[in-house]
Amino acid sequence: MAPKVGVILSGCGVFDGSEIHEATLTLLSLAQRGADVVIMAPDIPQFKTVNHLVQKDVQETRNVLVESARIARGNIRPVADVKAATLDTVIMPGGYGAALNTSNFAMAGQDIQVEASVGTLLTDVYSQGKPLGAMCIAPPILAKILHDLGVRGARLTIGNDTQVAAAIEALGQEHVQCTADSCVVDREHRIVTTPAYMLAQDMAELWKGIDCAVENLLDMVQA
Amino acid sequence: MAPKVGVILSGCGVFDGSEIHEATLTLLSLAQRGADVVIMAPDIPQFKTVNHLVQKDVQETRNVLVESARIARGNIRPVADVKAATLDTVIMPGGYGAALNTSNFAMAGQDIQVEASVGTLLTDVYSQGKPLGAMCIAPPILAKILHDLGVRGARLTIGNDTQVAAAIEALGQEHVQCTADSCVVDREHRIVTTPAYMLAQDMAELWKGIDCAVENLLDMVQA
Repeated sequence: MAPKVGVILSGCGVFDGSEIHEATLTLLSLAQRGADVVIMAPDIPQFKTVNHLVQKDVQETRNVLVESARIARGNIRPVADVKAATLDTVIMPGGYGAALNTSNFAMAGQDIQVEASVGTLLTDVYSQGKPLGAMCIAPPILAKILHDLGVRGARLTIGNDTQVAAAIEALGQEHVQCTADSCVVDREHRIVTTPAYMLAQDMAELWKGIDCAVENLLDMVQA
Repeated sequence: MAPKVGVILSGCGVFDGSEIHEATLTLLSLAQRGADVVIMAPDIPQFKTVNHLVQKDVQETRNVLVESARIARGNIRPVADVKAATLDTVIMPGGYGAALNTSNFAMAGQDIQVEASVGTLLTDVYSQGKPLGAMCIAPPILAKILHDLGVRGARLTIGNDTQVAAAIEALGQEHVQCTADSCVVDREHRIVTTPAYMLAQDMAELWKGIDCAVENLLDMVQA
């Protein structure tokens, strides 16, 4: 039976939502590996809207679910409507949306709070013994979920950024350096992470790291 | 020397701009094949803005270049600023933006008009003896450019849609049926096309067709 994989988006665009290449390549790898995908996003306003041409904030209110629907070609559900029992695993692409919308990591660092519906789903999925995956700037969300479940010492990567790594360690997990073309697999704690555009210099490299993460996440589902 | 490839976007989202998966997988294939990419879009208002969650038009004005910049991570130029002499070829992903913004094909059919800056660049590139590529609903743009240059009988595909095929034929070109996992290569007329989401049922299939198109387009550049 095809593994059922939830993909949580956080908008549409690297500076205020999901990183589009990361989200798309995650979906490509899942499709090539025969997964059945459920794309989701929280139905909340974006923290901000950024003009990606000039990289400046604009006075405009966009909705995370509505904008994420662009990446999903309309085939998307509010995170709050998806039950953990219907999924085998969940993976999160990065982009600043993971630090502005699905969490407040950009503002709060180690005091990170995860958006309520996202936090509930991830907590439930993990509590059911299923693995979780994240890339780029999304791994602190997993560090926080694990922390609040009392888990310590899970091995995660965000590449080699010392500030983000310190926040992960402050949440009781272990940061492991990793290159963009690879991924970190913690089978004991059922966590897969990859640096993605925290480090990737081009899309060929990006693809290798994301495909590594998806491959290992699906391996854990089927184990 | 790395081939220099122009990629013309038409917004960000299948229903009012560039199809995001098509655009991203085009960039992935180009990166894997070592191309040097110049991402562009016309600096014009979108024809319309569509809420991709409910697939309804909304009263909101967005700019094609600004929204396309989301796919390009900000690394994008107005089409009007790019000279044909600096490029070896140009390829266009699809999405309704190719029929609403970079052309008016959705409204005009065989009476298609191409957006001015896009039309000038494509005409100049092709007139310099260089190949052009397009996918999904973008091939009618190439049919029109060739038509206005007096070229007849170029072989293009949009999959198997009889109405779009008829418009391509009315513009003096030959429509060739093609499946989503393949592409149509007309070496005589220097044109590569692939159906992409006109027919693709999943991203694995989409990738095969786009990678086929990019491979053959670059082959022509290097020939």
